[in-house]
Amino acid sequence: MKNAVSSRLSERTAEEVANAIYRPGMKAFDDAALARMCSLNEAHLVMLCERDLIARPLARTLAAAIARIRGEGAASIDLDPQFEDGYFAFENRLSAVAGREATGWIHTGRSRNDIGATLDRMAARDLCLRMMERLDVARAACAATALRHAETIMPGYTHLQPAQPITFGYFLANVAAALSREHDKMAQAYVRIDLCSLGAAALAGTSFPIDRARTADLLGFAGIVEPCLEAVGSRDFLTELLWTATSALTVLSRVAQDMYVFCTQEFAALSFPDRVAGTSSIMPQKKNMLALEYFRAAAGRSIGALTGALAGVKGSNYSIGLDSVREGVAEAWPSLELFVDGMDLLRLVFETVEPAAERLKARCYENFSTATDLADALVRRTGISFRDAHHIVGGAVQMALDAGLDASGLDAAIVERSAEREIGRRLDLDDAFVRASLDPVASVASRTTPGGTAPSEVRRVLAALETKRQADGRLTAERRATLRAADDRLRAAVAALSA
Amino acid sequence: MKNAVSSRLSERTAEEVANAIYRPGMKAFDDAALARMCSLNEAHLVMLCERDLIARPLARTLAAAIARIRGEGAASIDLDPQFEDGYFAFENRLSAVAGREATGWIHTGRSRNDIGATLDRMAARDLCLRMMERLDVARAACAATALRHAETIMPGYTHLQPAQPITFGYFLANVAAALSREHDKMAQAYVRIDLCSLGAAALAGTSFPIDRARTADLLGFAGIVEPCLEAVGSRDFLTELLWTATSALTVLSRVAQDMYVFCTQEFAALSFPDRVAGTSSIMPQKKNMLALEYFRAAAGRSIGALTGALAGVKGSNYSIGLDSVREGVAEAWPSLELFVDGMDLLRLVFETVEPAAERLKARCYENFSTATDLADALVRRTGISFRDAHHIVGGAVQMALDAGLDASGLDAAIVERSAEREIGRRLDLDDAFVRASLDPVASVASRTTPGGTAPSEVRRVLAALETKRQADGRLTAERRATLRAADDRLRAAVAALSA
Amino acid sequence: MKNAVSSRLSERTAEEVANAIYRPGMKAFDDAALARMCSLNEAHLVMLCERDLIARPLARTLAAAIARIRGEGAASIDLDPQFEDGYFAFENRLSAVAGREATGWIHTGRSRNDIGATLDRMAARDLCLRMMERLDVARAACAATALRHAETIMPGYTHLQPAQPITFGYFLANVAAALSREHDKMAQAYVRIDLCSLGAAALAGTSFPIDRARTADLLGFAGIVEPCLEAVGSRDFLTELLWTATSALTVLSRVAQDMYVFCTQEFAALSFPDRVAGTSSIMPQKKNMLALEYFRAAAGRSIGALTGALAGVKGSNYSIGLDSVREGVAEAWPSLELFVDGMDLLRLVFETVEPAAERLKARCYENFSTATDLADALVRRTGISFRDAHHIVGGAVQMALDAGLDASGLDAAIVERSAEREIGRRLDLDDAFVRASLDPVASVASRTTPGGTAPSEVRRVLAALETKRQADGRLTAERRATLRAADDRLRAAVAALSA
Amino acid sequence: MKNAVSSRLSERTAEEVANAIYRPGMKAFDDAALARMCSLNEAHLVMLCERDLIARPLARTLAAAIARIRGEGAASIDLDPQFEDGYFAFENRLSAVAGREATGWIHTGRSRNDIGATLDRMAARDLCLRMMERLDVARAACAATALRHAETIMPGYTHLQPAQPITFGYFLANVAAALSREHDKMAQAYVRIDLCSLGAAALAGTSFPIDRARTADLLGFAGIVEPCLEAVGSRDFLTELLWTATSALTVLSRVAQDMYVFCTQEFAALSFPDRVAGTSSIMPQKKNMLALEYFRAAAGRSIGALTGALAGVKGSNYSIGLDSVREGVAEAWPSLELFVDGMDLLRLVFETVEPAAERLKARCYENFSTATDLADALVRRTGISFRDAHHIVGGAVQMALDAGLDASGLDAAIVERSAEREIGRRLDLDDAFVRASLDPVASVASRTTPGGTAPSEVRRVLAALETKRQADGRLTAERRATLRAADDRLRAAVAALSA
Repeated sequence: MKNAVSSRLSERTAEEVANAIYRPGMKAFDDAALARMCSLNEAHLVMLCERDLIARPLARTLAAAIARIRGEGAASIDLDPQFEDGYFAFENRLSAVAGREATGWIHTGRSRNDIGATLDRMAARDLCLRMMERLDVARAACAATALRHAETIMPGYTHLQPAQPITFGYFLANVAAALSREHDKMAQAYVRIDLCSLGAAALAGTSFPIDRARTADLLGFAGIVEPCLEAVGSRDFLTELLWTATSALTVLSRVAQDMYVFCTQEFAALSFPDRVAGTSSIMPQKKNMLALEYFRAAAGRSIGALTGALAGVKGSNYSIGLDSVREGVAEAWPSLELFVDGMDLLRLVFETVEPAAERLKARCYENFSTATDLADALVRRTGISFRDAHHIVGGAVQMALDAGLDASGLDAAIVERSAEREIGRRLDLDDAFVRASLDPVASVASRTTPGGTAPSEVRRVLAALETKRQADGRLTAERRATLRAADDRLRAAVAALSA
Repeated sequence: MKNAVSSRLSERTAEEVANAIYRPGMKAFDDAALARMCSLNEAHLVMLCERDLIARPLARTLAAAIARIRGEGAASIDLDPQFEDGYFAFENRLSAVAGREATGWIHTGRSRNDIGATLDRMAARDLCLRMMERLDVARAACAATALRHAETIMPGYTHLQPAQPITFGYFLANVAAALSREHDKMAQAYVRIDLCSLGAAALAGTSFPIDRARTADLLGFAGIVEPCLEAVGSRDFLTELLWTATSALTVLSRVAQDMYVFCTQEFAALSFPDRVAGTSSIMPQKKNMLALEYFRAAAGRSIGALTGALAGVKGSNYSIGLDSVREGVAEAWPSLELFVDGMDLLRLVFETVEPAAERLKARCYENFSTATDLADALVRRTGISFRDAHHIVGGAVQMALDAGLDASGLDAAIVERSAEREIGRRLDLDDAFVRASLDPVASVASRTTPGGTAPSEVRRVLAALETKRQADGRLTAERRATLRAADDRLRAAVAALSA
Repeated sequence: MKNAVSSRLSERTAEEVANAIYRPGMKAFDDAALARMCSLNEAHLVMLCERDLIARPLARTLAAAIARIRGEGAASIDLDPQFEDGYFAFENRLSAVAGREATGWIHTGRSRNDIGATLDRMAARDLCLRMMERLDVARAACAATALRHAETIMPGYTHLQPAQPITFGYFLANVAAALSREHDKMAQAYVRIDLCSLGAAALAGTSFPIDRARTADLLGFAGIVEPCLEAVGSRDFLTELLWTATSALTVLSRVAQDMYVFCTQEFAALSFPDRVAGTSSIMPQKKNMLALEYFRAAAGRSIGALTGALAGVKGSNYSIGLDSVREGVAEAWPSLELFVDGMDLLRLVFETVEPAAERLKARCYENFSTATDLADALVRRTGISFRDAHHIVGGAVQMALDAGLDASGLDAAIVERSAEREIGRRLDLDDAFVRASLDPVASVASRTTPGGTAPSEVRRVLAALETKRQADGRLTAERRATLRAADDRLRAAVAALSA
Repeated sequence: MKNAVSSRLSERTAEEVANAIYRPGMKAFDDAALARMCSLNEAHLVMLCERDLIARPLARTLAAAIARIRGEGAASIDLDPQFEDGYFAFENRLSAVAGREATGWIHTGRSRNDIGATLDRMAARDLCLRMMERLDVARAACAATALRHAETIMPGYTHLQPAQPITFGYFLANVAAALSREHDKMAQAYVRIDLCSLGAAALAGTSFPIDRARTADLLGFAGIVEPCLEAVGSRDFLTELLWTATSALTVLSRVAQDMYVFCTQEFAALSFPDRVAGTSSIMPQKKNMLALEYFRAAAGRSIGALTGALAGVKGSNYSIGLDSVREGVAEAWPSLELFVDGMDLLRLVFETVEPAAERLKARCYENFSTATDLADALVRRTGISFRDAHHIVGGAVQMALDAGLDASGLDAAIVERSAEREIGRRLDLDDAFVRASLDPVASVASRTTPGGTAPSEVRRVLAALETKRQADGRLTAERRATLRAADDRLRAAVAALSA
């Protein structure tokens, strides 16, 4: 039996080949994919006609057929894997609607290679915009909760041990800053995605006098990729986009890691409403923070998708191949969709998280997390060096612990005793000084240097982040508008074909 | 609104949580998953009844309900993500069929945790068997083609440069040996999969006097996992299975890499029928070896799935969590199915590959790949050391290349000239000796040491591999039979409930 | 200038090539590597002489030279990267000591390819033994601490929320079981490592009538690798060994993850002596559990090394190449050494960890972690189904929490109220029943089914694990003894050359 | 015995901890690391003095001591792992030189956390600049060779099958374009690296009125990181830098993959001088392209380092931890150094590669790679559609192959015969038309659309790339100059201390 798409090959594609290689791609050819395919073909058609590379009546016939196919949706396309891929399946349908003669003209000056690359760039562009749009909402929720808690004292941790008092607002302001930075990576990746491959043909360009700039413009691209082998042989823009998602999820996994611990009964530092929690089929008391585990898992999955894509692409040839442009990067697409979906859950997490303010503040009075403040105060008051003060306070903490005291029990007597041991003399301290130095509210308020914990400083940082977030949002909106405007131009140009 | 599955949680699960976390698992709950769920519940039910932990009439009611649900298939189950997972969805259906009262008894002495682990072990067990069964067919095809070509001379390469003559049969015998080794990893992994988690309950076992050995036996497991936290808290058996697939695909990617190059027009060493090849939408002459690119890509994808699972699990807690047992290893399942599907394509590749025997033999006469043989012969004939012989032949090859000659032009005069330069004297050689020493057929035949290229040796190795493959196949078949026998026992025990 | 090692190449190796490709390997050629090189050459020499492939006087000269070189150590070798690798550097030194003529004979019937593969297998064999030996000590420490704490009650967690009471001994018994399983993977990998590649020559075997079994025996290998391309073209045994280390570290990362949280001030569940902790340069009160973070990091690093090796190998050709056998797997070696070093730290962790027994037990009385036990008890006492009991207890927990009570405040009245709401009737309970059902000590003791938390069951499991560990240790010791015995045979055979 | 660095900890750090955790970091503390440490301390000292946070005489003493320590080099530092890390080892030496009293003042308003982050940013900044500088030289070599070969015809491949004629210059121009894009990723990463963490202290900022902008300026940073937890808790700038290296190496692996195949005897398309090649210890004729295998391996290693870092960081906590900032990203540093070293080898590869121009052109006349051109020509001449032309030419190619002809044998008669079969009529063609249509030189010249193969177009693209490369180089040079200028300011400010 004859091959469905080639006069060169004398046999029908083997079932094993069709199943393993072509079927998955066909399955993924949904309405959105068809819509991109139609737009791409319309843009190419308009350009061919403008360049007199196709007769206007034929172009008109084809335009009408494409409009009809778009309207019918992917369900009308025969997705037999024997057609190899979505393009040949589309061309087959086009042939049925517009006739074999007209359809024969549409593939002038191009190849499946540049079509595939262009469709992938269109899809990646949309994904990137959706990623930024949904991340933006999560950033806003994060910052709003941060602002609400700019004065909600809590212990700050390093190595998960109490380090110094911070506020929950401060904690989240840091997260908001990190997400702002992750946004920038996506916004920069967009520039490398937003270039058109169409007209690069198989790998070498074409001898037909096509107008690459025109099709790029009609499809809303900022420019074209050149030389042509680069335009078709790689999906580096996709692995970069996947990198940005992985990078953001790696940050979020760390944040989730902390919040997950903070939600334990032992920490009882954060809580969520029941609708955000999961339960147990056997333990009636359980309230599980699956939503936080989710982000830890999501980071792992994204790391896997990125690694797999890199390992696949790395072993491919420089010229085009399945493993450089399709099979090798296949997991990238669902992985990026997962990122987008996850952003809604992230927003919910930021919106609904509630710190146990009283308990957290009390804990700061007990857990020695203001020991550094006491050392700092000793430096200021007594003129000893920081290293001496550090050793004196460290010794005093040890003495207090040995005596079964928490930080509220640390008094001048203990500090003096430690000072005698460490530097051989007393420091003339009183309890009021020690107590004031150890106050966590004062500690947080005192850190007014740039990026510090003082509520005023947190509010300043959040305001700056909000200004940037709005600017980011405007850029994303402009990029969306650019795509819509291009689509309007395309509609008008297609209409002009029939004028 | 009330939570669908807990009296502890006072709110309905948020849409964002249901979408991101529960929906994907619900989607994957197909007929095969339902069948496993039914068997598991039947085994548990039989055991509960045998241990007098459930009244026989209730057990009978439940058994009938499960039989009906199995018959109706997954389509009859309400997979609303509000049910969190397949088990609660199943219990909901069971409740509708068997009544709330009877259904309330089924969950005695167990938890979703041990159910989930057991279902995953059942699924992994089946996957592992399918992997070995399908790999087995590919191994057989590889060995059969190897045997057919035990005397088909071709250049052997190192660093993709001609090294020494081998045969295509020898090449494939090595691949068959590698695949045999990969099989062993799967067969060993099976032992660690084939243990039952049921009855471990949430993480600590249960105070009900259940019989874990009995349920394990009814489900065909070789034993039980203990202690109980290990039984529910990890899916290490799954990552190990994924490792074995990745390991095998990494070998196959290297094999595909060589064959891909051998299929180029320039090598023209191997060819495939048209039905195994892909074509081009623009270049009429193309015949592309996508089937080989496929295996390069498949290895990359599997590496990604493995890495992602390890990264996910690595960051989880030792006790159970989404990221240790479900979300974290989610990509493993489709990745392993991909492996199974790929084995059919691999078999086709081995069945249909055809070496260009004449061209390959001719090439061995030209490409100096028997230079080592000449050096070896010089050692044997003239009593000089191998290092001297190596340098003399190296110099002679260089002289021949400088004179524009290929290996067929290498004669005694050139070798003598090189000998004079390298060791200061002539060796009394004649052209017949040189020519005989350079003959690739003789070269291949002369390597009769264990594992060498001699056709007799290749046949011996292939026979040994075939013996092992048959033993491997018998073990796999026995494992299948063990599962079937257990299912028969389960059917009988369920029937006995109603007797 | 002439190439240092070839008469075929007319130029000296470029500095850029020598630096990037050869220098790192030369740097790694230490005394241990030299010792392996000497043994390998001695074994080959003995065999050549026994097979009359080298004259006895020459063999004697070479044996003496090798003995001298071994004695001098790697410092006596000129490791100029122009020699490309350790073998040529060794041969250069051999030539200086034994003379050019004798040295010329040593390379008969072999190649750098089989030498390199054999050396790597010798090194991997030693590494695998060290891994198992050091892991064994950590397993023993883990089990010993587990046994000591078989009755030390603590909350068991799922999703890091209190689930059911367990003991610290139970927790560690699970870890010991997991490590036992990880050991098995290493022990099985050893079998695939412990095969000799020597005599496979470049890729095709050799025409000299060498005795591969003899050299394998003198080097202590259990057998030989065949066919020969498999013997030289892959390092799959190394990636498998790396897999086993990565798998073990992934488990240990999860364990560390839990213990890290348990060491927080909020949990205060575990503590370590000061010598295991790190401090802060600024916060005098800090005591950081770096040793636990270390294992989380170690797992990540090992995952990276494994992924990198797989990605490297996956893209290489089936025949030998830098990326399949050396550069591609370069990170595996240091990564495995890191594993070995980490085992000492792991032993220290298990030896020194101390649970806060009183606090942990008290917590179990408060945190509702015996809610499942109450549900189970309701089933047993009142004849209601588990699902009903589950809902009743879940509702009661909610009521208690709403009333600001912990588990010690849960009484019959609350449960009855919940029962009325859930199933419409009271259950005739009394406070004594409820209190007894909620007792964590009783809960732990009641789980006597296989793998349960009951101290007797934990001790039984630990005893079984200890029996297995001793058997594992004996096998490892036997494998060491096999290597020593082979070395004795080699010494004797070398001595016999000079007899 | 007392802990070396803390009065809080009462024991000396255990050997197992010191070995596994602190020793590696101490080993890496070389002269370059010490120089960065000295500069950082000088900048901090100057700022403290300017802010009156330290007395001028003390500052003067400390400045002199730092100058002396810098001069002595790392060899003068006691790197006992008991000091935990480089900073404490430095402080210990400072104490010995400047006295305990003065030294005690230097740590005011900071922590090891912000010191470590700042040192890492300084190191990453230098690495990033070196990466761009060395990549720049390779880009220049690539473009120069491309320009030299803008008219050197060769087959272009897709799926490694001849697709359409291109030139070697075109091939390399694509590579140059790809490397230009990879450069941009590094240049953008630099912006995120080039921010100062100093003064963020442990995680919360400090209550001393330090001037973060001043220290940042003295150390040449463009700004500061805020809030402070972000400044110390992550090394995301390092994983991003590693991503850019991995991304570039993934492209280079694909390029090496093609060139490696092109260097085979069968392709004989490219060659390199002997100094770039490796040889064999046994096969005298070998000339191995290790330099190309190197880049395939390098990509794998970099993928591994990136994956390992992400997996490590992903599992860490949001606040500072070993695995988020040190052990978790430990492999990144050597991996990036490897990238830098590799760029020299890459330059050598581009400089020395030589295409076999005559053979390549001849091959284009034989391998049907101009079949698309013939189809295009049929469209232009006969007015049939491209799809019809595609089928006619595909059929003609098949007929020619069946007749044992290569492309030079394809004549009008064959094409007409195919036309009759495909579209039922002849096309009135002559041999001259067919021959002209199939001419590869004409084919290449005809692709004048943007990014096409026409030499003029290749030269235009290369000129644009050269303009960009020079601009890139200027920016890198300016960044270097900025660092030098800051160092001058720092020197002057230190000198002013003593004025």
